[in-house]
Amino acid sequence: MGLFKAKGTVYKAVKDVDLGPYSTEHYLQANVKAPRMTGILIKIFIAILECPILGTLLLYILKGNNLIHDLITNVDLQESPLFVPLHDFEDRKEKEVKCIDSSSSPPEKVQLAIDCLPKSSSEEQENSFSRWTIMDYYKAYSSGNTTPSMVAEKFIAAVNESVKPPLQMGFFIDYNTDDILRQANESTLRHKAGEAISVLDGVPVAIKDEIDCLPYPTTGGTKWLHKERPCEDDACCVKRLRLCGAIIVGKTNMHELGSGTSGINPHYGPARNPYDKNKIAGGSSSGSAAVVSAGLCPVALGVDGGGSVRMPAALCGVVGLKPTFARIPHAGVLPLNWTVGMVGILASTVEDAMIVYAVISGEIPSDKPSGTPSKINLPLLSMTKSLSGIKLAKYGKTLDVTIPEIEVMRLAHYTTIGSECSASLGSLREKNIAEFGGDARVALSIYSSFSSLEYLNAQRIRNRQLQLHMKIFAEADVIVSPTTGVTAYSIQDDALKTGELDYINGAALVRYSIAGNFLGFPAVTVPVGYDKLGLPIGLQFIGRPYSEATLIHLAFAMQAISLYKKPGQYYDLLRR
Amino acid sequence: MGLFKAKGTVYKAVKDVDLGPYSTEHYLQANVKAPRMTGILIKIFIAILECPILGTLLLYILKGNNLIHDLITNVDLQESPLFVPLHDFEDRKEKEVKCIDSSSSPPEKVQLAIDCLPKSSSEEQENSFSRWTIMDYYKAYSSGNTTPSMVAEKFIAAVNESVKPPLQMGFFIDYNTDDILRQANESTLRHKAGEAISVLDGVPVAIKDEIDCLPYPTTGGTKWLHKERPCEDDACCVKRLRLCGAIIVGKTNMHELGSGTSGINPHYGPARNPYDKNKIAGGSSSGSAAVVSAGLCPVALGVDGGGSVRMPAALCGVVGLKPTFARIPHAGVLPLNWTVGMVGILASTVEDAMIVYAVISGEIPSDKPSGTPSKINLPLLSMTKSLSGIKLAKYGKTLDVTIPEIEVMRLAHYTTIGSECSASLGSLREKNIAEFGGDARVALSIYSSFSSLEYLNAQRIRNRQLQLHMKIFAEADVIVSPTTGVTAYSIQDDALKTGELDYINGAALVRYSIAGNFLGFPAVTVPVGYDKLGLPIGLQFIGRPYSEATLIHLAFAMQAISLYKKPGQYYDLLRR
Repeated sequence: MGLFKAKGTVYKAVKDVDLGPYSTEHYLQANVKAPRMTGILIKIFIAILECPILGTLLLYILKGNNLIHDLITNVDLQESPLFVPLHDFEDRKEKEVKCIDSSSSPPEKVQLAIDCLPKSSSEEQENSFSRWTIMDYYKAYSSGNTTPSMVAEKFIAAVNESVKPPLQMGFFIDYNTDDILRQANESTLRHKAGEAISVLDGVPVAIKDEIDCLPYPTTGGTKWLHKERPCEDDACCVKRLRLCGAIIVGKTNMHELGSGTSGINPHYGPARNPYDKNKIAGGSSSGSAAVVSAGLCPVALGVDGGGSVRMPAALCGVVGLKPTFARIPHAGVLPLNWTVGMVGILASTVEDAMIVYAVISGEIPSDKPSGTPSKINLPLLSMTKSLSGIKLAKYGKTLDVTIPEIEVMRLAHYTTIGSECSASLGSLREKNIAEFGGDARVALSIYSSFSSLEYLNAQRIRNRQLQLHMKIFAEADVIVSPTTGVTAYSIQDDALKTGELDYINGAALVRYSIAGNFLGFPAVTVPVGYDKLGLPIGLQFIGRPYSEATLIHLAFAMQAISLYKKPGQYYDLLRR
Repeated sequence: MGLFKAKGTVYKAVKDVDLGPYSTEHYLQANVKAPRMTGILIKIFIAILECPILGTLLLYILKGNNLIHDLITNVDLQESPLFVPLHDFEDRKEKEVKCIDSSSSPPEKVQLAIDCLPKSSSEEQENSFSRWTIMDYYKAYSSGNTTPSMVAEKFIAAVNESVKPPLQMGFFIDYNTDDILRQANESTLRHKAGEAISVLDGVPVAIKDEIDCLPYPTTGGTKWLHKERPCEDDACCVKRLRLCGAIIVGKTNMHELGSGTSGINPHYGPARNPYDKNKIAGGSSSGSAAVVSAGLCPVALGVDGGGSVRMPAALCGVVGLKPTFARIPHAGVLPLNWTVGMVGILASTVEDAMIVYAVISGEIPSDKPSGTPSKINLPLLSMTKSLSGIKLAKYGKTLDVTIPEIEVMRLAHYTTIGSECSASLGSLREKNIAEFGGDARVALSIYSSFSSLEYLNAQRIRNRQLQLHMKIFAEADVIVSPTTGVTAYSIQDDALKTGELDYINGAALVRYSIAGNFLGFPAVTVPVGYDKLGLPIGLQFIGRPYSEATLIHLAFAMQAISLYKKPGQYYDLLRR
C-alpha cells in the first residue's frame, strides 16, 4: 500500500524475501557509530546536543552515521503502518494446554496454575543449586518451619546488608521496613489460622519502580518524576498479586526512564550482578533481575519495552517471561511508551514465572480492548513426566531460518520507543532537565529528533516484520536464539556519577529481543549456561501471539536439562 | 495515561469538559496567519521554505504562528494515542433499517437498496428541478426511450463542449471516448436482450483520479505520480460498480495530491462550479462534485481525507456521503494517507447515494480487519410515507451542544494527514519536485516539518476527541452543522498557473468536516439552500460509527423539505 522508490534502502516485497537457511539476506551488524562516553565527555556532548542549531546538526549527523537515514528515513517501502501490535486471540486448542478463564479471581488462577505443575521429588531439589521457589515458601509456611514474619526479617536484614559497602548491590530504589513487616504479620496470622489465601501468601515479590505500588512513589529511576506524577493507587498487576497474599517488598532499581540497557543508574547506584558485583545486571529491569538472582524474592515484576525483562534476566541467570502484548493490563504502569512496553515476570524458575503469569494475566473486564483474549493458556507441565529424559527434539524437528532486517527492526523500534517516550514526557523533560542523569539526558535529546515521517516509516517496518515473522511461524512454533548478544560486562568507575553511553554494548544486548516488543510476541528467556568468566547465558524462545504455553513448556524442558546451576551471591531466606 | 504538565495548552480531563449549550468552552476561531499567495510570491516562498536552514526556521515560525506549538506540540494531555479510527461494529437493531449481508454480490446489493426506496410519483419529479437519478436512467432504458449508447454520445458531446472556451469547466483529468462507447454498447445490448444486470446498468459514473480505474493512469492530480506508480487494476469499489453494469466515464479532476480544498489544479485547470463557473467547485474531489452537479452523471466517487467529498458536494449543491472508516475497502486508492481517508459518494440525490453506498460497502472477504462490519445497514425510506409532511422534528428532540476544541482537532488532523502524506510520498517528493504545482509544493514542505512528538500528540488528541464525541453521541444520534464555513469563492486569475495558497478560506471550508475523518464517523451533506449569490449551502449530519442508515434517513427528509432547487449549469443527457 505504499508508493514508490527511494534513494536509501529499497525493501523488496515480503513474498520475495528468502527466509530459509541459505538465504542471501545477510545479517547487518549493528553499525553503531558512537564511542563509549562518561563523565566530562558526556557533559560536553550534552552541551552541544542541546544547542538549538548545532544540536540539530549533530543529531542529523548521528542519525545518518547510525544508518537511520539509510534504513528508516529515505526508504522505499510497500507496507502501510502497523501502529499497535495487538493480535486477535485465537484459541488454538493446543495439546497439553489448559485454558483458564481470564475473569477468574487471582487466587483461583494460582490454584489452576499449581494444578499444571509436576510433582517434583524433594531429593532433586536438594541436589542441584536452585533458589527457593514459591512452592518452597508455601511448604515451609504450611509445615511451620518458618513464618512470613521471620522471612521478612531475614529479607530486611539481607537488604540492609546489601546496600552497604562492600556490596552496594543497588537492588532497590525504595523499600519500607514497616510496610513489609505489616504485610508479613498479616500473612503469618493467616497461615497460623490455616487461612492462607493461596500459595503466594507470604511470598516476597519485588516490583520495578516503573509500576505503581503503594506506599511508594513511582520514580521511573529518576529524581523528579514522582513529584510530577504522584502514585495514587496500585497498578492492576500489583493488586492481583496482593489479592493472592504476596508480600510486596519494595521498588527495584532500574535504568533511568528505561532509556538504557545497562542498569547503571547515576541516582540510585548501579544494580549489580549477583554473579559478579563488578558486572552490570542489565536493564532496564535491573533490580528485579538482581533480587531474584540473589534469592531475595522468587519472583519480581519488570517492564519489557525493548527486552528490558529478558536482558537482565539472562545476565543474572534467572527466568524472564514477557507475555503477548496486552495480555497483562498496563494500568498503573508509567506510560513511557504506548506500543512496545509490557509488564513481564522475572523468576528463579519457569514454574514460578508461570504461576505469576497466570495471576496477573487477563484484561481488566471493564477495559477490554477488542481482540484481547478471554482465556489464559497454561501448559500442563505435569504431562512432561520424566524431566531428565527430555530433549528439545521431543518438541519436533528444528529448522534453520534467516530473519532478515533485524538491525532495521532494532532501529525502527528505537525510533518508536524514543518518539513515544519523548511525547509522553512532553515539556516535563525541559522542566526537569537539570535532574536527569547524563545518559538519559542524551537519550531524550536523540528521542526528540525523530520526524513524523521516521515514526511512520518505523510503523511500516513493523508491519513488514510482522509479515516476515508470521511466514516463519507458519513453518515453526518458536524461534530460538541467544537472549543477548553479550554477557554481563564490567561496571566502570567513571560511569557511576553521570551514567554511561555505550551504544555498542547496548545494541548487542537488545539484538535478539526486539520482535517481542515491536511485534508483540510472547518471549521467554531461560538460563542455559555460563561464559568463560562464569557469567550466565540465556536462551530465548519467541513464539507466535498467545503461545505462552508452548514457550513455557520449552523453557521448562530447557531448565531441566540445564544441569550446570552455579550460584552467584545469594541469600537463603528460608533455611533457619 | 499521559504524564504531566506543559507550558502550552493544558487540556482538562474529558470528564470535566462541559458539552452543554451554556458551556464556557469557547470556539477558538481558526487562527490562520498566512496571507493568500499566488504567482511569484509562492515561488519566493518555496525558495525560502526549501532552503536547508532558513526553511527550517521559517517552518518553525509558521507552525508557531498558526498555534501548532501551543495546541499540539507543548501540551499537557492525559490521553494515550489512538492511531486508527477503526470502530467495532455493533448491530444496533435500529428501527426502519434493513441490514444486508456485506458478502452479497454487488447486483444483489443494488436490488436490496432499491427495495428500500419509496415509490415516488412521476409528477413530483417533473415539477421541481432535479437532476436525473439512477432510477430515471433505468426507466428510460427499460422503456426504450433512450439507450446507454445514446446517453454516452450525449455525454461525450457535453464533455467535449465543457473543456473548450468559454466553459473550460475542468471536470475531467482524463476520459476515453472509445472506452465509454464500448461499455455503453455492451450495456445497450444487455438492455435490448432484457438482461440488464441491475438498475445501474448503463448509468454513467465518474471516478476521482485518486482511485485506480483502467484504462486510465492514476495521477492524483499530478503530472508525475502515474509514472512512478502505474495503475494495474481497478480499485475494489470500481470493480463492484462494473459488476453492476455501470459505465465508468472517466477520471475526475482533483486538487493536486488532495493537498488543498479549492480544487484549483494548476496542471489540469481548476474544476469550476456549475452554479457559477468563476467560483471554485471545492476540493479535493472537485471534479466528482462538479460532474454530478452539472448533470453529467447521477453519481461519482470521491475520496474524503478531510472533508474532500463533503466540501465540494456542498459547494456544488449535491449530496456527499462519507461512510464509517473502513466500511468501504481502500484497495486501489492512492495511499496518500492511512488513517483518515475514505472513499465517498457524490450523488444528485440521497437515494442514489444510498444505492452506491450499498454497492461498494463491505470489506473484501479475504482482507477483513478485525471489527469491521459483516452487515450493511440500509434505511427503509419507503417507511417515510408523505415526503412533503416531514419535519426534522419527527426524528425527535434537538439539543444544543458545544463541541470543544474543534480548531485543535483541525490542527491535529492536519498534522496527521500531512505527516502520512509525507511518509507515503517519501523520496519521490524530492525526485519529482520540479513537477509540483506551487501550492502542493508548499504543502509538502509543511507536511515534512512535523516531528514524531507532534504526530503522537495529534493521535492523543484523536483519542480525546473520540471520547468527547462519544459523550455527545450518548445523548444524541447525530450532530447537525453547516457542511462548510464558507460557500464557493471566486477563482482568481492569478491562481491558475501556480495554484493558490489560501489557508484562511481553506480552514473555513474544513471547519466542520474533521470529525468525519479524524474519528472515522460517517457523515452526509445535503443541499439545503443558497447564499445571496445563489451558491449552494450544504447541511451536514455526522453520526456515531455505522449509523449510515440514520444519516441517510435524515438527509432524505431534509432533501424533501428543501424545495428551493435552483439549478446550476447542467446537462440533460436523458431528454431527447
